[in-house]
Amino acid sequence: MHKELLEDIGEKELINRIAAFMPEKQVSDDCAFVKTKNKNFLINTDSLVENVHFNDDTISALDIGWKAVASNVSDLISSGCSKIIGVNISLVVPPKTDWIWIKDLYTGINGALERFGGFILGGDCSVGSEKVIALTVIGTQGKIKLRRNSCKPKEIILTTGIHGLSKLGLMIKSKNVFDSNIYLSQALINRSIQQFCKPKLKPKFLKKVIEACPTKKIKTIGCTDSSDGLYQAILDLSVESKCKAIIDYTKIPKHKNWPQGNEWDEYYFFGGEDYELVFSLPRKWANNLLFADNTISEIGYFIKGEPSIEFKNCNNEKLLKNKSFSHF
Amino acid sequence: MHKELLEDIGEKELINRIAAFMPEKQVSDDCAFVKTKNKNFLINTDSLVENVHFNDDTISALDIGWKAVASNVSDLISSGCSKIIGVNISLVVPPKTDWIWIKDLYTGINGALERFGGFILGGDCSVGSEKVIALTVIGTQGKIKLRRNSCKPKEIILTTGIHGLSKLGLMIKSKNVFDSNIYLSQALINRSIQQFCKPKLKPKFLKKVIEACPTKKIKTIGCTDSSDGLYQAILDLSVESKCKAIIDYTKIPKHKNWPQGNEWDEYYFFGGEDYELVFSLPRKWANNLLFADNTISEIGYFIKGEPSIEFKNCNNEKLLKNKSFSHF
Repeated sequence: MHKELLEDIGEKELINRIAAFMPEKQVSDDCAFVKTKNKNFLINTDSLVENVHFNDDTISALDIGWKAVASNVSDLISSGCSKIIGVNISLVVPPKTDWIWIKDLYTGINGALERFGGFILGGDCSVGSEKVIALTVIGTQGKIKLRRNSCKPKEIILTTGIHGLSKLGLMIKSKNVFDSNIYLSQALINRSIQQFCKPKLKPKFLKKVIEACPTKKIKTIGCTDSSDGLYQAILDLSVESKCKAIIDYTKIPKHKNWPQGNEWDEYYFFGGEDYELVFSLPRKWANNLLFADNTISEIGYFIKGEPSIEFKNCNNEKLLKNKSFSHF
Repeated sequence: MHKELLEDIGEKELINRIAAFMPEKQVSDDCAFVKTKNKNFLINTDSLVENVHFNDDTISALDIGWKAVASNVSDLISSGCSKIIGVNISLVVPPKTDWIWIKDLYTGINGALERFGGFILGGDCSVGSEKVIALTVIGTQGKIKLRRNSCKPKEIILTTGIHGLSKLGLMIKSKNVFDSNIYLSQALINRSIQQFCKPKLKPKFLKKVIEACPTKKIKTIGCTDSSDGLYQAILDLSVESKCKAIIDYTKIPKHKNWPQGNEWDEYYFFGGEDYELVFSLPRKWANNLLFADNTISEIGYFIKGEPSIEFKNCNNEKLLKNKSFSHF
């Protein structure tokens, strides 16, 4: 019989096929939504595989633990989670693993939970030939639902923070040799390593968005996180919300020492793992939020049209290519 | 620095060390208990690793999917779950995996969910060098909590169904060569393969226990499942409830064609993966239940004393050894 191998199918197609097994096809948001009588819950699972998502040369077990929680919690925050309840951990490790590695991993997990809320609920541990850490985080759905499919034409596109830092941090930790005419400031280096190893999140994001809301009627806004890069985040919003994104390149917030050049644009837009929030709001709401929080930037707007991204004021044609971040 | 490898620490010790990172140390029941304002939840994670828990020679992807759900749901049932909400799936597969394998896995998962309740909520999929399936199942806590630490002296020890079948099924599927003077009936062979590949559960167990309850006061009873074998189940109840189990060997329910001999006692008591329920009740309650359900058997009782198991009417000294089932 003809075999159809995963490596030939590719990640996107695989995700679509798996989604067919879910009655509510909740895969468009990374996060699952569970409705109960009195409260609604958000549940998210992320798996980290050794030599695919991490290796011992670039990141410590302590930081892997932190990051495993952060990447999961980021999916909950970008869905409008108001409170993290806790996490279940499935850990697979080779028998030759040093106990210290596991101890550090759990210490890192607890460190992140202390910061973001919740605690370790339970889990399972088994042997295997390579390390696999799968976390399932549970939280409660807040007042406003944040969903990828809820952006509307005319809404302003915004982002928290800046992008590309985690990718630069990974390159530095991987002992990447940079072009000799590139100057990397110590501030940029430190912040990038921090963002790669122990990313900060925006646990108060939902609260700020609600406070800036000019009306009480709105129950859903368009939002995702930039775990797969800024470009992919905008594209996901665009595709799921069925509208076209116009991005003003000159408004993109960069670290003040971020180098110029096509290569650096690529790191910026496609790097991933920054866990910033990318979202859209009506003009007035956006203005209120921009006024209240100067770490949030306006970067463009949505219009009616085929799902896609159009850059204004950008000389780098490469950016227009539909390219996406993939671990697969 | 001195390394302390997992293979030297062992599974039990590792679980105890990991439990130290959980504020409520819920590891004594496989299942985590989450209290919310209006409803309480049970959450359980189980990981299946290729060549540790399964391999393609002995079990199909369809049956692995079923069994992954069953082993998780069994932990929820043995904690007193009244309703399965759903499951999150973390799947790691090599790039050379055939799509049909994954399709069958998810078909098996959905087949089990159709039977036991709930649906696939979400998950994550990644590449890796070996297959790892980690499921996290969520359900609601029913009226009576079933816990390993809630057995009391003088209570009757009971079990649903019969044991050893799954182990025999595995041996048959592994093409184990049996002693030529052992006769295995076709009925026993069929039932054992069924129990190994597509185990049945007892989703109505809690309802039956509640119906048989002579009073409305009781909120917790001692219970676990036999996923690690009948012996380990009794030992876990005994250790967690801090009392001594007296088991009458002559009362142990066996398949009518189950062969005799020390070896077959070992398969019976230490085989594991039968997912029967092992629990204790006060005499009157036990009688009501035994009268209402003839697939449940009385096998002994608890007394005050050091956590341990004492067999009565048993000539097989080997059984008295403190031996347990381990994948590690």
